[in-house]
Amino acid sequence: MFEAMVEAVLDAGGEPVPVAEASALMWADPAAALEFPLVVAEAPDLEWVQLPYAGIETFAANLDPAIVWTCGKGVYADPVAEHVITLTLAGFRHLHTSIPATSWPSQQGRNLLGARMTIIGAGGITESLLRLLEPWNVTTTVVRRTPEPLMGANRTVMIDALQEAISTADVVVLAAAHTAETHGLVDSAFLEAMDDDAWLVNVARGGLVDTDALVVALSEGLIAGAALDVTEPEPLPDGHPLWDLENCIITPHVGNTPEMGLPLIAERVRQNVERWIAGDDLIGLVDVEAGY
Amino acid sequence: MFEAMVEAVLDAGGEPVPVAEASALMWADPAAALEFPLVVAEAPDLEWVQLPYAGIETFAANLDPAIVWTCGKGVYADPVAEHVITLTLAGFRHLHTSIPATSWPSQQGRNLLGARMTIIGAGGITESLLRLLEPWNVTTTVVRRTPEPLMGANRTVMIDALQEAISTADVVVLAAAHTAETHGLVDSAFLEAMDDDAWLVNVARGGLVDTDALVVALSEGLIAGAALDVTEPEPLPDGHPLWDLENCIITPHVGNTPEMGLPLIAERVRQNVERWIAGDDLIGLVDVEAGY
Repeated sequence: MFEAMVEAVLDAGGEPVPVAEASALMWADPAAALEFPLVVAEAPDLEWVQLPYAGIETFAANLDPAIVWTCGKGVYADPVAEHVITLTLAGFRHLHTSIPATSWPSQQGRNLLGARMTIIGAGGITESLLRLLEPWNVTTTVVRRTPEPLMGANRTVMIDALQEAISTADVVVLAAAHTAETHGLVDSAFLEAMDDDAWLVNVARGGLVDTDALVVALSEGLIAGAALDVTEPEPLPDGHPLWDLENCIITPHVGNTPEMGLPLIAERVRQNVERWIAGDDLIGLVDVEAGY
Repeated sequence: MFEAMVEAVLDAGGEPVPVAEASALMWADPAAALEFPLVVAEAPDLEWVQLPYAGIETFAANLDPAIVWTCGKGVYADPVAEHVITLTLAGFRHLHTSIPATSWPSQQGRNLLGARMTIIGAGGITESLLRLLEPWNVTTTVVRRTPEPLMGANRTVMIDALQEAISTADVVVLAAAHTAETHGLVDSAFLEAMDDDAWLVNVARGGLVDTDALVVALSEGLIAGAALDVTEPEPLPDGHPLWDLENCIITPHVGNTPEMGLPLIAERVRQNVERWIAGDDLIGLVDVEAGY
């Protein structure tokens, strides 16, 4: 499966060498984070490490600020943005009641066309999402840490305007990095502030949501429903109350699957190796202090 | 519920009168087609009838060619096109396995982004669909009766190229009127011509599909799955084999619900009454001979 990465390195003019001689390390396997510090320790001449994912929590403890780190930021944005639309439409169009039905269901549904969407986070997923929805007449509000307006959004607000931004949305999308600041952001107060007809969509990380508070909100109808591609804990254990809530749609962290992502990260590796050799700035630089 | 229609007539400068005195009839209730000939018989001075839906089969036996008929052609196109995308994403993203799951499912899925879509029919739904998918990098082929290329499609082919058009698609969308020509179009040969990884999406009418042939194709894996907003028979009766096929997604004819559609048809009535009074051409003229 990782042949595509080797090909990308070769294609860019790079030379694959043993770890001990490497000046740059392309870490291909997102599942092997535990072995990561052991491999890095064997490479005294490392100047640059390319990580395989957009979210780098599993590597965060090992980011030596003396070397350059890049990750898959932005690379997987398109498939994940597509999945935001999938999950929103699934909720709005009542697939959670239609798909399990074995008898003609009652006619229900609302449109994403013309709806109001509030997106938490202003990274690559949000940029892709705004681009894909451009012809859909969706009124979009982006909530971010900094005041710069995001291109393609109807309005951009800072995190201090969160309450108003989520109370006027038909769907609230979580697309922010999981950091100390965003951990547990969606708590009881957040869910109460949302419209009781609104859907919550999470394609970021399960840790952004207080799962117990979400179970209460879904059970009591504080919101219309939740569509989660990520959960806390993850994988969601058998018997967890979220499985039994009809207004909760769960997909198994497939915003971007390995099959969708490999050609995308290989292309990023190709571009970055080319830039590294030319001495140009790399794409997807990790801010070691911010953790993303 | 039909106050919106009366308001639209008034707003356009029309005057609501008893049927016996009417020169134009705005038929608001799609469910009351059986009473339709009785009402028309009471209106000797009728020159124009506006029908409430895009598909007019239930009225087709009563279309007197001496008067002008208009229908909701194009009015409901946007919500139905949105539902095409909902159903395609539901299949591609494996919601039919994820939604019923009560245990973390295996990771599966493919993208609509960059996929190949073949659309049968070149009416309003197809136009809307092409517009909504404009940023999605989907390669689109439209199959129609006439040779004019449809704007926004990568290619337009005539019905005699059907076989090639459906065999090279990741998803085949049925968006054609139900006529003698399209009845049973999707038969065993059609389903065998499709790629075994491809999905069939039907938002047109159930009669376009030979349901028995579809049951066989889904059971034997001739295609990846079917997502149907319309069925034959409809409503699909309890115990029908389609209910039990995991790779069959069924929604209850909600491409456009009455709640989504009422403001749209009311706006069409407003425009047409205005045009009628001004002596301009009406929108959505029915070709009585073609039956749509």
